[in-house]
Amino acid sequence: MKRSNVSNNVIRRLPRYLRKLDDLASKGEERISSDKLGRQMGLTPSQIRQDFSCFGEFGQQGYGYNIDSLRKEIGQILGTYRGYSAILVGAGNLGTALVQNFDFIIEGYSFLGAFDVDPSVIGRDIDGFPIYDVKDLGPFVREKKVDIAILTVPRHAAQELTDTLVASGIRAIWNFTNTELEVGENGPLVESIHFSDSLLVLTYHLAQLDDGEKK
Amino acid sequence: MKRSNVSNNVIRRLPRYLRKLDDLASKGEERISSDKLGRQMGLTPSQIRQDFSCFGEFGQQGYGYNIDSLRKEIGQILGTYRGYSAILVGAGNLGTALVQNFDFIIEGYSFLGAFDVDPSVIGRDIDGFPIYDVKDLGPFVREKKVDIAILTVPRHAAQELTDTLVASGIRAIWNFTNTELEVGENGPLVESIHFSDSLLVLTYHLAQLDDGEKK
Repeated sequence: MKRSNVSNNVIRRLPRYLRKLDDLASKGEERISSDKLGRQMGLTPSQIRQDFSCFGEFGQQGYGYNIDSLRKEIGQILGTYRGYSAILVGAGNLGTALVQNFDFIIEGYSFLGAFDVDPSVIGRDIDGFPIYDVKDLGPFVREKKVDIAILTVPRHAAQELTDTLVASGIRAIWNFTNTELEVGENGPLVESIHFSDSLLVLTYHLAQLDDGEKK
Repeated sequence: MKRSNVSNNVIRRLPRYLRKLDDLASKGEERISSDKLGRQMGLTPSQIRQDFSCFGEFGQQGYGYNIDSLRKEIGQILGTYRGYSAILVGAGNLGTALVQNFDFIIEGYSFLGAFDVDPSVIGRDIDGFPIYDVKDLGPFVREKKVDIAILTVPRHAAQELTDTLVASGIRAIWNFTNTELEVGENGPLVESIHFSDSLLVLTYHLAQLDDGEKK
């Protein structure tokens, strides 16, 4: 498996391919051509062939891709099912929703529990996962060598908890706080979900329609 | 203001520019060069100049961009502050978190309230906004000509509620259900937040580090 020199754009398309292939597999499809996959995803067939070729050869000329092996390959490239450990920092509405509704956090990862500052939730659980006191966050991360922290605390607490996580050797932060985190030169990987960006894209298109231009 | 023929990639970068400019403005900065902006955002100066030129001329050669007017221009292009009306469909943990924690839903939009199926929350409120019975969703959308529905219901209910929204003339759906919605040929705009995509990108980079290749 070659992996170097893969552009960020390709990497960001891989989860989309995976979702699409899961969808096709659940409909009982077994093979798909780059033409058909392209049409369904709004990409050109040559872009698809080029994306996949970054990682080796998956398809056969004129015969399409085997959906099942393509899914497995992409999953492997993305590093799912390596059992990375994850914790939730902030057991409020958003964090609770993520753990309760999104199986992907549980599947393929080793979810160890949540941390919060609120005495009324500490000691309770989310779907069976313990909620610990945030005071114990640093030692826990250090001792368990936690890979990923899912950060869903209020904005004002984001940087302080990030500092704790960084000092304790966290490897990656999945950031839902709608703020830019400072993690230093050799800090962890950070992937931020910026809800507002996506709403603004929607609003842009609405405004465009209202201004009488084509969608 | 020219707006046609703007690529999706440019549109998706605009909210990032806006966040960055807000950040700079809050630090008291007044002007910034495309060089400096590029370094801070991981883009080349020429890409920035090219992005902005899609919408007309903002900067002055050798003098940089005026942060305040650039913010206003980008906000106008994105259609913020047009007062689009929005409702929340699904007043669970995720929907509640969005309304409570993210002022952007309230600012610049006209937020009209939430809908839910659960009798124990119907008639209550989220931060002062009423929670209505989901049975009244269709007539409400039709009567108030609602622009945007924020869809935060469980996966299994997503398509049925989408059908109701589409039949009632909703103009845009902001989709948090982690499922692809079918809205038909002339259906509303849909913008989906796929949480898992972003987690997979993070996992990809972790796996890459573990495989001993460069970050």
